[in-house]
Amino acid sequence: MKIPYSTLTSASLLAGRAADMQCLGSSTGEPLAEGTYNEPLRPQVHYTPSENFSNDPNGLIYANNLYHVYHQWNAHENKPGYQNWGHATSEDLVHWKLHPPAITPDSEEGPFIFSGSAVIDVNNTSGVFNDTTAPENRMVALYTSATDEKQTQNLAYSTDGGYSYTKRPGPVIDLNNTQFRDPKVFWYEAGSKWVMIVSLASQHEMIIYESANLIDWTETSRFGNVGQLGYEYECPDLFPVKVEGSDEEKWVLITSVNPGAIRGGGSGTSYFIGDFDGKAFTPMDLTVREMDFGFDNYAGVTFNNVPDEKRLWMGWNSNWLYTGQVPTEPWRSALSLIHELSLTKVNLTHQQETLMLRHTPVDLSSLASLVKQTTTPMSSDSIDFPSDGAIDFTADLAMTSSSSDSASKSASRITIESEDGQNSIEIGVQFADHIAYINRGNAGWSNAVFGNVAATSITIPEDEQKVRVRAIVDHSQLEVFVQDGIHLASMAFFFEDGRVPARLRYTNDEGVVTESFKLEALKSIWQC
Amino acid sequence: MKIPYSTLTSASLLAGRAADMQCLGSSTGEPLAEGTYNEPLRPQVHYTPSENFSNDPNGLIYANNLYHVYHQWNAHENKPGYQNWGHATSEDLVHWKLHPPAITPDSEEGPFIFSGSAVIDVNNTSGVFNDTTAPENRMVALYTSATDEKQTQNLAYSTDGGYSYTKRPGPVIDLNNTQFRDPKVFWYEAGSKWVMIVSLASQHEMIIYESANLIDWTETSRFGNVGQLGYEYECPDLFPVKVEGSDEEKWVLITSVNPGAIRGGGSGTSYFIGDFDGKAFTPMDLTVREMDFGFDNYAGVTFNNVPDEKRLWMGWNSNWLYTGQVPTEPWRSALSLIHELSLTKVNLTHQQETLMLRHTPVDLSSLASLVKQTTTPMSSDSIDFPSDGAIDFTADLAMTSSSSDSASKSASRITIESEDGQNSIEIGVQFADHIAYINRGNAGWSNAVFGNVAATSITIPEDEQKVRVRAIVDHSQLEVFVQDGIHLASMAFFFEDGRVPARLRYTNDEGVVTESFKLEALKSIWQC
Repeated sequence: MKIPYSTLTSASLLAGRAADMQCLGSSTGEPLAEGTYNEPLRPQVHYTPSENFSNDPNGLIYANNLYHVYHQWNAHENKPGYQNWGHATSEDLVHWKLHPPAITPDSEEGPFIFSGSAVIDVNNTSGVFNDTTAPENRMVALYTSATDEKQTQNLAYSTDGGYSYTKRPGPVIDLNNTQFRDPKVFWYEAGSKWVMIVSLASQHEMIIYESANLIDWTETSRFGNVGQLGYEYECPDLFPVKVEGSDEEKWVLITSVNPGAIRGGGSGTSYFIGDFDGKAFTPMDLTVREMDFGFDNYAGVTFNNVPDEKRLWMGWNSNWLYTGQVPTEPWRSALSLIHELSLTKVNLTHQQETLMLRHTPVDLSSLASLVKQTTTPMSSDSIDFPSDGAIDFTADLAMTSSSSDSASKSASRITIESEDGQNSIEIGVQFADHIAYINRGNAGWSNAVFGNVAATSITIPEDEQKVRVRAIVDHSQLEVFVQDGIHLASMAFFFEDGRVPARLRYTNDEGVVTESFKLEALKSIWQC
Repeated sequence: MKIPYSTLTSASLLAGRAADMQCLGSSTGEPLAEGTYNEPLRPQVHYTPSENFSNDPNGLIYANNLYHVYHQWNAHENKPGYQNWGHATSEDLVHWKLHPPAITPDSEEGPFIFSGSAVIDVNNTSGVFNDTTAPENRMVALYTSATDEKQTQNLAYSTDGGYSYTKRPGPVIDLNNTQFRDPKVFWYEAGSKWVMIVSLASQHEMIIYESANLIDWTETSRFGNVGQLGYEYECPDLFPVKVEGSDEEKWVLITSVNPGAIRGGGSGTSYFIGDFDGKAFTPMDLTVREMDFGFDNYAGVTFNNVPDEKRLWMGWNSNWLYTGQVPTEPWRSALSLIHELSLTKVNLTHQQETLMLRHTPVDLSSLASLVKQTTTPMSSDSIDFPSDGAIDFTADLAMTSSSSDSASKSASRITIESEDGQNSIEIGVQFADHIAYINRGNAGWSNAVFGNVAATSITIPEDEQKVRVRAIVDHSQLEVFVQDGIHLASMAFFFEDGRVPARLRYTNDEGVVTESFKLEALKSIWQC
C-alpha cells in the first residue's frame, strides 16, 4: 500500500518552494534531498524529521531563547528501531530548524536512547559541569538506557547549548527491571529539589522520586492501577496548570497507555487532575479524562522552563497499531502542533461541573491568509482552498430547533476532500447525542485494525445549543479543537495517489445552522 | 438504508420452520405474523421480541422454576419510546416464550416504565401481599417512573407469577431529580435487609440504599466520579462473584455510560471489583475494566435468585448511537446470550496479576451439530456452514515463531462471509501487539458514527503464545469470547439484501497456526 516515492510527480509537488533549503538544516547532518518536505502526504505546518521514523517527543525545553524539541528517531531506517534523540529548534514554536541527533547509542546494538526529559542545572547540582559552562547552558538530559535485559534511568549533559550530550557512565536509577522508562524531571521550586516521575510500564504504575543533584534519587510515592487498564503505561508527566479565571493552580498527571487504550485498542493518553505536595500526587477524582478523542495522539509531554508559567505541550501524532505501515516516505510520523494547556471549569451535564484541560494551538497567524469568512447563518457551503500549505478553519454551529424527525441526530457535517472528491475526511457534530466525531473511512489508506471513526461526548450548554469546531488540516494530519479546545481530536489520514485536501464542504440537518465560518490558508513552515 | 420488509423473498427465508408458532407466544398478545423470526437479519439463538423496539434487560429473576426476562420495549413502534416492561420466560435459558408486557404506562403520555429489577418478597416485608399469594409468588418490581419533570423509584407487585404487576401509588424514592434511575435491588443476607443501587445519571454517581421493607429507603453511601467520564451513568448493578479456584468472593459493581463511552463514543459498560460491607462498595483498584470490547453491549445486569450462587448476566446488544436506525423490521435490538460470570486471576503482563470477569455463555449443546473439527495445525481453511441457524466455533491459535519481517503483526484472521462473499465480518488476533479485534467494515449497513473496528489488549502468557477464540455468529449478532471469555466482544452487523453468514475462512501469518478448530451449527431456538 505504500506510494512509491519516485511516483510523486511534479504535478503533485508543491509550488513556490525555495530550491535552497539549507536554511532548514536536516535531521542527518547531510544536505536535504530535492523534494524533501514537498511530498503530497508531508505535513506543511507540523514538525516532521526530514527522513526516517520518529516517535515520542523528548526533552522539550526552552533554553537560551530557543525551544528545543528532541524526539525518538531512527537514524537508519523508516521504521521503528535504533532509538536516539533526534533534534530540532524553534524561535517561534511554528518554524523548525533541523539538527543531527543529540544523543546516540554507543553501538548499533545499543543500549538505545529511549524517551526522557531535559532540565537546566543552573547551580550545577549534578557536579558534571565546570565554570567554563555558563549557568544557563548547563543542560542535563535524563533518559532511559534500554537493552533487552534492562531499562535504567541515565544522565547525559551538554555544554554546547543542547546540540550534543555526553553520557555520564552508569545509571542513576536501576531497578533491574525490563519495563522501567521515560523519566520526566523538573525543578520543584517549593521544595528546592528535583522531582522525577517515571513509569513501571508493566505494573501500570508511576514512581515519583526526589533528588538534590539529579544523580541520587529517593522514591517518595507511587500512582497507578487507575484509569485505562491497557497493556503498558509509558511517558508520564506531572506539572502545574492554572485554572482559568482564578488564582487557583492544580497539578495534572499524564500517562500514555499502549497497546490496549480503550479508544481503538492501540495507543492513547489519559490525564488526572489533582494536587502535588512535592512527594505525592493526590487526584481530585479518578475519572479517566482522555487527552484526545482521535486515534493519533500519544506520548505527549510538556516543556520545561517556558517563561511566564505557560504550560506548552506536544504529542506524537501516530499510533503503534499501524505507525510502521503508514504510506509515507522517506519519513514516518509527525509531532503535533504545540498546544498551550489551561484548566477550565466545564459543565459536563446540567447537574455537574468539573475541570478539564483546554488545548489552544500555537498562534499560526504569521502563516495565515483569509480564504473565506461568513457571518450569516448558512445551512451548507462549498469552499475551494489552496492545496500547497494547510488550512485552519472555525465553524460556529447552533441548533436553532429540534428536528421533528425522531431519527434525526440534528447533525452538522464538515467534509474535507481532494479536488476530485475521491478521498475525504469528515468531522461531525450530533446535537441530539452530545457527540462529536471524526470519520476517516473514505480517506484512502487503512488497515484491518485502523479504526475509521472516533467519537466523544462533548459539552453543550443546555441553555445555549452551540458548538464551535476549529480544525487544522495539514495534508495527512488533522487536529480538531471542539468547544475552544476542551475536546481535542488528532487523526492521521492518508489520501491516495498524490491527492491532497483541496475543498471543504459542510451540510447541516434541519434545525442546525453554521452561524459563522472562517477559513484561512496556512503557508508552509518549510519555506525559507 | 432500510431493507423493505416486503422484499425479503422466500429465497431468503429460512426453511423447515413450523408454520404454527403459537408455542412461542408473542410480545403483543396477538398471534405472530407469518415469517416472524424467519427474517434474514433475525438472530436465531438470541432473544428478540417478536416486533418493535427493545432495549435494556430489566427485572431478571429466577422464580418458580422459570427464568423471567423483562426488558424495555415500545409496544407501539419499532423505535425508542413508550417504554414498558416487555416479558419473556425460559426454562433452560436458551429457548424463550414470549408474553405481553408485564408493566405498562398509565397513559400514552406516561409516566413511562423505565429500567429496574425484581425480587421475591417471601416474607411480605413490603406488606403489599396477603396470604392468598404463596410466598414464592410474591414478586416485587422496583422500577423508574419517568416523566420529563422527574424520575422516581417506584414499586409494583405481581400475584400471578410475574405476568402482570400492580403499581403501588406514589414513589418509594423521590429526589426531585430528572436523571435518577434504574434501581437494582437485592436481598443482602448478611444484613437481613434489602439493598438498592441506583444511578444519579447526570452526576456520574451511584447511590446505595438499604431498606427493611422495599418501601422506606435510607442512603448508606455513594460511588462515582471514577472510570469513564462520558455523559450519563445508568443501569448499575452490584453483586458477589466467586474467584475461580478459591473460596474467595469479591463484589462487582457495574455502571453503563452513555453517550461518551470511550470506545466508539456511544454506549459502553465498565465494572469495578472490590468489597461490599452492606453499606458501601470499596474497590480493590480504580482501573477501568470494560465489560465488552465490542460496540454492542450495554445496560447488562445480573439475575436475582439463581440457584447454586450462579451469577448469570444478560446485556442489550446495541448502541444508542445508531440503535434507532439499524435496518431490521419489524423488530429492533437483540438481548445477549445469557453468560455465567466468574472472577479469574489474570496476568495482564508478566509483571502484574489482577482479577477480571470471565464470561461463559450458556450451554448451547442442545442446539449443536458438528460441522467441522480439525486437530492438526493449519495455516488456512474455508468451511461452508448451514445458514438457517447460527454457528458456534472455537479456534486455538498459537504463535510458533516470531516473524522475521518486522512489519508483521503475527496475525490470525477469521472471516465470516455471505455465500457470495460480498459481505463479511473479520475477527483477528495480532500476537505482536497483544491485540484482538473485530472489523465489520465490510459487513454492509453502516452510518457515519458507526465504528467499524473494535480492538482490545488481550492476555497472552509470555511463556505460551496461545490465544483461544470462540465466537457465536447469529445472523446479525456476533459474540466473541477470547481466552475463554476473559475478553468479550459483542458486535451487531447487518449484511445487505437478504445475505446471511454462510462460510468461515481463516488465514494465519507466517509463524502462526490454528492448532485446533471446531465449528458447530446451532439450530434456531424459534422452532417449536
